[in-house]
Amino acid sequence: MRAVDIITRKRDGHELTRQEIEYFVDGFARGEIPDYQASAWAMAVLFRGMTARETYDLTLAMVASGETLDLSHIAPRSVDKHSTGGVGDKTTLVVEPTVAACGVPVAKMSGRGLGYSGGTLDKLESIPGIRVSLTTEEFLDQLAHVGLVLCGQTADLAPADGKLYALRDVTGTVPSLPLIAASVMSKKLASGAKGIVLDVKVGSGAFMATVPEALELAGRMVDIGRRAGRKVVALISDMNQPLGQAVGNALELREALDTLRGAGPRDFREHCLRIAAHMLIVAGKARDLRTGRLKAVEAIRSGAALRKFRDLVKAQGGDVAIVDHPDRLPAAPSIQTIPSPRGGYLRRVEARTVGEVSVSLGAGRERKGDPIDHRVGIIVHHKVGDRVEAGEPLFTVHSATAEAGEAAGRALLKGVAYSRQPVAPLPLFYRTLRS
Amino acid sequence: MRAVDIITRKRDGHELTRQEIEYFVDGFARGEIPDYQASAWAMAVLFRGMTARETYDLTLAMVASGETLDLSHIAPRSVDKHSTGGVGDKTTLVVEPTVAACGVPVAKMSGRGLGYSGGTLDKLESIPGIRVSLTTEEFLDQLAHVGLVLCGQTADLAPADGKLYALRDVTGTVPSLPLIAASVMSKKLASGAKGIVLDVKVGSGAFMATVPEALELAGRMVDIGRRAGRKVVALISDMNQPLGQAVGNALELREALDTLRGAGPRDFREHCLRIAAHMLIVAGKARDLRTGRLKAVEAIRSGAALRKFRDLVKAQGGDVAIVDHPDRLPAAPSIQTIPSPRGGYLRRVEARTVGEVSVSLGAGRERKGDPIDHRVGIIVHHKVGDRVEAGEPLFTVHSATAEAGEAAGRALLKGVAYSRQPVAPLPLFYRTLRS
Repeated sequence: MRAVDIITRKRDGHELTRQEIEYFVDGFARGEIPDYQASAWAMAVLFRGMTARETYDLTLAMVASGETLDLSHIAPRSVDKHSTGGVGDKTTLVVEPTVAACGVPVAKMSGRGLGYSGGTLDKLESIPGIRVSLTTEEFLDQLAHVGLVLCGQTADLAPADGKLYALRDVTGTVPSLPLIAASVMSKKLASGAKGIVLDVKVGSGAFMATVPEALELAGRMVDIGRRAGRKVVALISDMNQPLGQAVGNALELREALDTLRGAGPRDFREHCLRIAAHMLIVAGKARDLRTGRLKAVEAIRSGAALRKFRDLVKAQGGDVAIVDHPDRLPAAPSIQTIPSPRGGYLRRVEARTVGEVSVSLGAGRERKGDPIDHRVGIIVHHKVGDRVEAGEPLFTVHSATAEAGEAAGRALLKGVAYSRQPVAPLPLFYRTLRS
Repeated sequence: MRAVDIITRKRDGHELTRQEIEYFVDGFARGEIPDYQASAWAMAVLFRGMTARETYDLTLAMVASGETLDLSHIAPRSVDKHSTGGVGDKTTLVVEPTVAACGVPVAKMSGRGLGYSGGTLDKLESIPGIRVSLTTEEFLDQLAHVGLVLCGQTADLAPADGKLYALRDVTGTVPSLPLIAASVMSKKLASGAKGIVLDVKVGSGAFMATVPEALELAGRMVDIGRRAGRKVVALISDMNQPLGQAVGNALELREALDTLRGAGPRDFREHCLRIAAHMLIVAGKARDLRTGRLKAVEAIRSGAALRKFRDLVKAQGGDVAIVDHPDRLPAAPSIQTIPSPRGGYLRRVEARTVGEVSVSLGAGRERKGDPIDHRVGIIVHHKVGDRVEAGEPLFTVHSATAEAGEAAGRALLKGVAYSRQPVAPLPLFYRTLRS
């Protein structure tokens, strides 16, 4: 078998065999197949696509390139959750303690933010002292004793995926649905959870621009999960406008704490309850969405979800005082209100614009390894469909300097559009797929 | 400007600007743009294509990556010739001395054979002592004094093309018409000839399988030449069956010498006269095909063409006795005749089969740098359309061992097909394009 023949077969639109895919991924992971062949192959996959079988074989080949976690003794019914990334998406910080408070172990390895959507680890690190780098032993121990872990990758999971993703990032081969699906699912399968809830974002602030695209990606991921014997649910959720009100690390953590206390923005709370309900169903703790949602509501109302979050912060060495006194979170030096320049119904509050402005303020990173400023960000006061009057606050900008805040205000208004006629609010979810 | 953005724009079907192409080729040639980005880019070009303008800019960027020869003082009207490669294609060995004998300087840098078509240099090297590695000074000096040079590349012409071709070869990105056209034409433009005749082969033994494909490639090359101010003619010629009778290095050299003496197979002689006529027209030495052909016929009849070839061999240190006594060429140990197993009209004498068998005998190389055996090869006694009887010789195999010859005979017959009805002969040429 030769790498060039595998590239050529894919280039010419043939379905690759399992053996060919294993040979290619294994050779690439071990450095025997060079980057220049892998990038040409990825470009051919981008143009020609992959069948469901090929995508599954690719996923398994990437899983086989590294370690896999076996959670069956510690937490046989643990669930995991993955979001494809969105602006203001702090869902993990709320749903994981909520679901854990319902007695379902939650083991999540999360990522750093890149581009205009933030990463859960960055948000969590707004808490002074918290550790997100755990060893595999610490990870398993905390899962057994606290029932909730939220950290960076502990083991060397699917290293072929990490290597391929880095290559795709610099060769224009990221936007291939089978490659994205295999990348996400290889990490999820390797990290051991039996149930997985996928939140696939669609809209201007998401990687997928249209519902059909998002559905195709979701369908591929669910299919991989089914073939691997995992219970998978994929939700297609809106990302045309930011989720909730807060965008920026400490601001989002605070909004998550508010929501864990039973407050928080209505759209974000509703989003979290739905995701939590699906996680409870997948874990066998609820038989339908209604009972799942009630359990989640009760976990929040009773304070159990917030206590679980406090346990997590404590277990990972963070300052638990922040949980009870979010006003002690680091604050930005400059806080400015951006008023609406006119009256009308909001037709657009573009997630992508808000995300890009938040990165320009320092809340995100343009390149891997860039430092971030946990204090800065944006509060988005209104949703699409809201009626606003001229002079009413649209945004509050938290920035390092007054100048940066003013520039951010001007940029944010470019993402806002009005209508004289009433405008329907955007849905939270579009579709649900199950394995 | 970033390489990944240029890849992405091509991936998405946009036309690249001249600046983008120059940035990419220059960065790649200097090692600043890594192979893995160049191979992904080449795959995107393969799928998306290139406009005529992009193809021309790519060609010029590759020319600019190295030296260029200026022949304007030594041989202002010199012509060059290029064949896309075919089985039994020893045309250069005949037409270049013929055209040179008509007073047109011919400066040709040729290549080694790869795959199932042989290289002119390999054929020439059947002559003991001949040198094909000349310095630029030797090249220019011989062009000025002999009016004919046939050697390997002297200067560092279009090194970006050499580097990109090597990468394409191992990444499944060879069969892109704009990349092939730019590759061929970058070498031709850099080597300085003002007139260029291109012989684009089409058929089972050629890189292009169909006339429309060959026409598109030819059209792209002619367009590049026109934009660069060169006179270019492209002929689309048949390569479904071998050209002439001899396939293999010393055998082909001998057939070329026969043809220079006025003998040689009719199809091959006719092919050479037509190419020579076009070269004479391009050089301004003939006003039409008829007069060009007459001049070429006369150059052969008078012995001037053979003398010119002898001058070339002498200038490059080869044994001139071979020119007059081709029977002194190295002979293969085993010579076997392969009879026709049945009677009928020949419907197919597949060039590709003959080419592959010649490589298996040792006449060609599967990988760059492989040694070759100049003695071995095949004489193809019949053409498509010929009537043959059972037992009549179809092939004569020249091999290193009797066993190799027997295996070759069996393999060769797989490329032969018969018809009970009369079959029309294959044309020599399909089309002609001019700049």
